[in-house]
Amino acid sequence: MRKAFEVTVLGTSSATPTKYRHPSAHYVRLEGSYMLLDCGEGAQRQLSRYGLRVLKISHVFITHLHGDHYFGLPGLITSMALYGRTEPLVIVGPPALESILQVLIAESDSVLPYDLQYIQTQTESMETVVETEQFKVISVPLKHRVSCTGFLVQEKGPELKLNVDACVQYKVPVEQYEAIKMGADYHSQSQGVIANSLLTTPGYKNRTYAYITDTLYDPEYLVPILKGVDLLYHEATFLHDRADRAAETFHSTALQAAQIAQAANVKILMIGHFSARYNDAQPLLDEAQSVFVNTVEAVEGQTYAVGE
Amino acid sequence: MRKAFEVTVLGTSSATPTKYRHPSAHYVRLEGSYMLLDCGEGAQRQLSRYGLRVLKISHVFITHLHGDHYFGLPGLITSMALYGRTEPLVIVGPPALESILQVLIAESDSVLPYDLQYIQTQTESMETVVETEQFKVISVPLKHRVSCTGFLVQEKGPELKLNVDACVQYKVPVEQYEAIKMGADYHSQSQGVIANSLLTTPGYKNRTYAYITDTLYDPEYLVPILKGVDLLYHEATFLHDRADRAAETFHSTALQAAQIAQAANVKILMIGHFSARYNDAQPLLDEAQSVFVNTVEAVEGQTYAVGE
Repeated sequence: MRKAFEVTVLGTSSATPTKYRHPSAHYVRLEGSYMLLDCGEGAQRQLSRYGLRVLKISHVFITHLHGDHYFGLPGLITSMALYGRTEPLVIVGPPALESILQVLIAESDSVLPYDLQYIQTQTESMETVVETEQFKVISVPLKHRVSCTGFLVQEKGPELKLNVDACVQYKVPVEQYEAIKMGADYHSQSQGVIANSLLTTPGYKNRTYAYITDTLYDPEYLVPILKGVDLLYHEATFLHDRADRAAETFHSTALQAAQIAQAANVKILMIGHFSARYNDAQPLLDEAQSVFVNTVEAVEGQTYAVGE
Repeated sequence: MRKAFEVTVLGTSSATPTKYRHPSAHYVRLEGSYMLLDCGEGAQRQLSRYGLRVLKISHVFITHLHGDHYFGLPGLITSMALYGRTEPLVIVGPPALESILQVLIAESDSVLPYDLQYIQTQTESMETVVETEQFKVISVPLKHRVSCTGFLVQEKGPELKLNVDACVQYKVPVEQYEAIKMGADYHSQSQGVIANSLLTTPGYKNRTYAYITDTLYDPEYLVPILKGVDLLYHEATFLHDRADRAAETFHSTALQAAQIAQAANVKILMIGHFSARYNDAQPLLDEAQSVFVNTVEAVEGQTYAVGE
């Protein structure tokens, strides 16, 4: 069976929470790894409300220091301490985030029972900020009112399919099957090197989740970066009749998000980060679908698969 | 009609929010004045959920710098800016709160369209921290793991009842009635000074709301301070079978809260700040009522009158 790769939306508002919406936070599960993209106020309670595993989260990625994207992080960090966390937590975000969090922790007179490890984002160029055996996360500088980066979460592989008949024929020991699936050749004493391509068939394509918020509409820059991603989350703060307001505030419209998705030929577009003026997101969804039919609305508590 | 004086509970958890509870925040309405006591994560959304007027709040009082009592304040402040607030907001709390908030605001690259006015609490002695025509708020140092103060919110008066027959008899002009109700004598050219006591009957007793959290059980110190208050909110983090744990963490049990209420002869005790281990607060309420029958449970979204 294919590895799980899915996103649970915890917040869909922009700027201010509303009666119906929480600020930005996406919970990503990639097989055994759990991460959080942004952590708006209330994210920890949303996690518990939807039965998600708070302590499993190993990485938190913060796009920028507007409150609706990280004011839930101090509470998450202190709650993890109260829940008895001992595993380190990696926090990826703008440079000032570290000193902000350190002051809050110091003033609460607490010593965390686990390490916070900081990785600073920069806005000069794209960069691999985290790489594990399972996945790679790349920061993508965005044009917003303050320093801001989106993130590409990429599954690592190659995840090849084993050609069992060939393995039996070449007498590959079973304990080597995992290495073969990861791309290794088989070094046999009697047969010499058996190339991986003789022992496997092409596997699944690696999947990518792109988290693009907050940003000005910027197709020339964004489209090449987002080419062919499986699931693109792109902010859609306004309907297009407010394109001027979107440009002024360095945000995008639903139509613009769809134009990016269309030009980048992504599989699915998810829109969110809706202005508080829209209680009902249906008009935003309709507008995006008029350009790019495979658009879905980010709904709090719902989980979306990345790729098939 | 008597002036409104009531408290709406926005959060009832301690330490960490749960699926069912938010961290501490009480919204107080005293006729034309609105204030917030503590501002745990999610308080701004709770305000909007219960249809309360966010922009009307003129004062925020923070007891201490544990996150469950103020991590909602940065979001409230920035949302007030986005809602276009221009009136100043008074923030009363521990000294470090000002620098924490200033850093968060600076890093979000925002300039607030209104003034934040800070009043620092101290833990040496009780002190009047705010006094207006309507009310007075007194800080009460509490014994907790970090510097902490509770608050007494006192209605100001005297609010006398007009003796209309007497006023007519002494020919008091109607435009002086308000001053007479506030305690003024009537200066008549023909009759000389008519004492206020001839023109009024004793009015309502001024009411007091006491907000006492977080604190070690400390009857010798607290009982004299809380003598006869109309509504006492006292934290009740644990059931009494965990009195040791309460003492260790500088918290109180439901039984202890009730003992304080009983000894201070308050009218109503409200208990809250429940440990996450108690999904159902009924056992805490039962325990408190076994000592002090006029105990109510703090329930999120409910409004409680201060005095009759």
